[in-house]
Amino acid sequence: MRDVHAYLGAWMQRAGMSVRVDNAGNLRGLYVASSPGGPTLYIGSHLDTVPNAGAFDGVLGVVLAIALVELLRQRRLPFSIEAIGFSEEEGVRFGVPFIGSRALAGTLDADLLARTDAQGRSMADAIREYGLDPSRIGDARSGDDALGYLEFHIEQGPVLDDLGLPLGVVNTIVGQSRLTVTFTGSTNHAGTTPMHARRDAVAGAAEWITAVETLAQRTPGLVATVGRVLAQPGATNAVAGVCEASLDVRHASDEARAAAVETLRHAAAQIASRRHLRVHWDTHLDQGSVAMAPALVARLERAVETLGAPARRLDSGAGHDAMIMAARMPAAMLFLRSPRGISHHPDEAVIEGDVAAALAVGLAFLEDLAGAIT
Amino acid sequence: MRDVHAYLGAWMQRAGMSVRVDNAGNLRGLYVASSPGGPTLYIGSHLDTVPNAGAFDGVLGVVLAIALVELLRQRRLPFSIEAIGFSEEEGVRFGVPFIGSRALAGTLDADLLARTDAQGRSMADAIREYGLDPSRIGDARSGDDALGYLEFHIEQGPVLDDLGLPLGVVNTIVGQSRLTVTFTGSTNHAGTTPMHARRDAVAGAAEWITAVETLAQRTPGLVATVGRVLAQPGATNAVAGVCEASLDVRHASDEARAAAVETLRHAAAQIASRRHLRVHWDTHLDQGSVAMAPALVARLERAVETLGAPARRLDSGAGHDAMIMAARMPAAMLFLRSPRGISHHPDEAVIEGDVAAALAVGLAFLEDLAGAIT
Repeated sequence: MRDVHAYLGAWMQRAGMSVRVDNAGNLRGLYVASSPGGPTLYIGSHLDTVPNAGAFDGVLGVVLAIALVELLRQRRLPFSIEAIGFSEEEGVRFGVPFIGSRALAGTLDADLLARTDAQGRSMADAIREYGLDPSRIGDARSGDDALGYLEFHIEQGPVLDDLGLPLGVVNTIVGQSRLTVTFTGSTNHAGTTPMHARRDAVAGAAEWITAVETLAQRTPGLVATVGRVLAQPGATNAVAGVCEASLDVRHASDEARAAAVETLRHAAAQIASRRHLRVHWDTHLDQGSVAMAPALVARLERAVETLGAPARRLDSGAGHDAMIMAARMPAAMLFLRSPRGISHHPDEAVIEGDVAAALAVGLAFLEDLAGAIT
Repeated sequence: MRDVHAYLGAWMQRAGMSVRVDNAGNLRGLYVASSPGGPTLYIGSHLDTVPNAGAFDGVLGVVLAIALVELLRQRRLPFSIEAIGFSEEEGVRFGVPFIGSRALAGTLDADLLARTDAQGRSMADAIREYGLDPSRIGDARSGDDALGYLEFHIEQGPVLDDLGLPLGVVNTIVGQSRLTVTFTGSTNHAGTTPMHARRDAVAGAAEWITAVETLAQRTPGLVATVGRVLAQPGATNAVAGVCEASLDVRHASDEARAAAVETLRHAAAQIASRRHLRVHWDTHLDQGSVAMAPALVARLERAVETLGAPARRLDSGAGHDAMIMAARMPAAMLFLRSPRGISHHPDEAVIEGDVAAALAVGLAFLEDLAGAIT
């Protein structure tokens, strides 16, 4: 991270920005307005990604923010621009995502700072060991003069690639529910227990997993996933007495998401009742959808249309820093096409022409905003 | 095992038997015939069981063999009886079951002796460390003068308990197929991948698991079990690219079992094709069914009927030493009711009255056999 800060910080300085690292470890380059006291537009994304990932998730958005300022060639606008490389978006080390953007939004509290990693080291300790001061993390909070937050990010899904479009304007960052369901029957000998005498937790879970997929396929805009399945005792020659499965449900409408979760809980209860199984639920996450700011979205659409391309709107199925920033200021996102939808994988890619298009859209967006403010 | 040998060996001696431990670690008590040169009836079961098991699986059959000889009160029959406590039936340590009975049947070969346990110690080493001589394991083979092999065992299933019967005569030890099927699609982000763009290995496996259960429920005498399921990467927020599932199929008819496996392979191929998944199979076991010897089965039925009880015939879904011994001599088995079908569990039980009934059946069987030989 120090190398990344050094490399990008030097580039920020060459582009005319003053550079600092705030006490949440965010790299921040300030490109001041043409006259003092102007408002600030924040443009950024995250510098971290997951282990064994690709080269573009997050950092491409930071690079685009800096390149955009560089393209201004020292010309000042009626507003300041702060380019940000957020320190920690994925939540790999402490199990909680969006550490960097929470600091800007002012929602990084003492509970989060006290969270420990796998080695028992707290987030506050990690910040201190990096040479920063966790007691002064409040200084990272963005000013009250914000025009808004703009984030460039790869789509991480196949929608734009399937449509043959380089760019998309994010409408809503969809809400997420994450739960674990446990079916409990009884463990029995696979050879000596007739079919009618079984209380097979795997068979019950399998029926329910099919119901999850069927509901999602039939409900527009819904995605629902069972990605983790664990049978116990998990032996070839034993009917499993316990089967645990994860459930991830997302929809742009919180009502539609809640209804889907309720339908799937009801389906599990019915399946369990018919099969003489017990069913138990744990809810790990219930996060509402976050709409991007309509005025900024419209401005971003107009900027895309200046390229002669249709401004396709789409929802983001993944969470982003923009979702956190939206609690503090108007936020908008521009997605770049992900070839074959691949992300969080070494094959993650981006097309050079799409990056050029994103820069052109960014410039048009800045000009449009400057015109509105002058 | 030494304590068990000492305890049961002393009891064998009191009952009038000469005792030895053969080079496969089987405890063997010989109760000689009324005149030299008579044939031998082998009666036994295994002394081992699985970890965290109950008190009756295996050893009850050994205890019944000794108690039966004791009930003769030194009276000699026209045939010898050899009571056997087999050393290793479950295969826990070396992954191969029926070590003790294979030695009597003459099918414990050099490959098996070279097999190693989790610590890398070979079966031959383990035998040596116990104080026995693996090079002389051939001496454990039963003589050519066998009348047959009789085994008492708990049913380990719910059939007799459901029927309210204390005892059952085993017809056939059913054949088994054990396989692993792997569905491979592609790992994707659970939030950004629309339902139609997924190649979800868990959803494919779930559909197939339901097909396994449905086929078994519709096919008389078939049991089919998926007891182990493993999704990869196995994260809540990732569509699983790989899902592995075990398959255990059993039927008294080898043809019916082979047809069921074929149907389930075909079902997997169809599901995989429709979902754009790949499917791969590994076969771990393909063991034919073993019928008990009709003459001994008929004799055992008559013995049960002397108690005034119906002689219910049933198949054994589990493998037993009798299956191995059947390759060397006529074999028969008497099952004792397992309350609630529980086995390989600390709650495994047996009803005292059922044990008394089994002993009475055993005595009637011996008298009947003695009458036929005299």
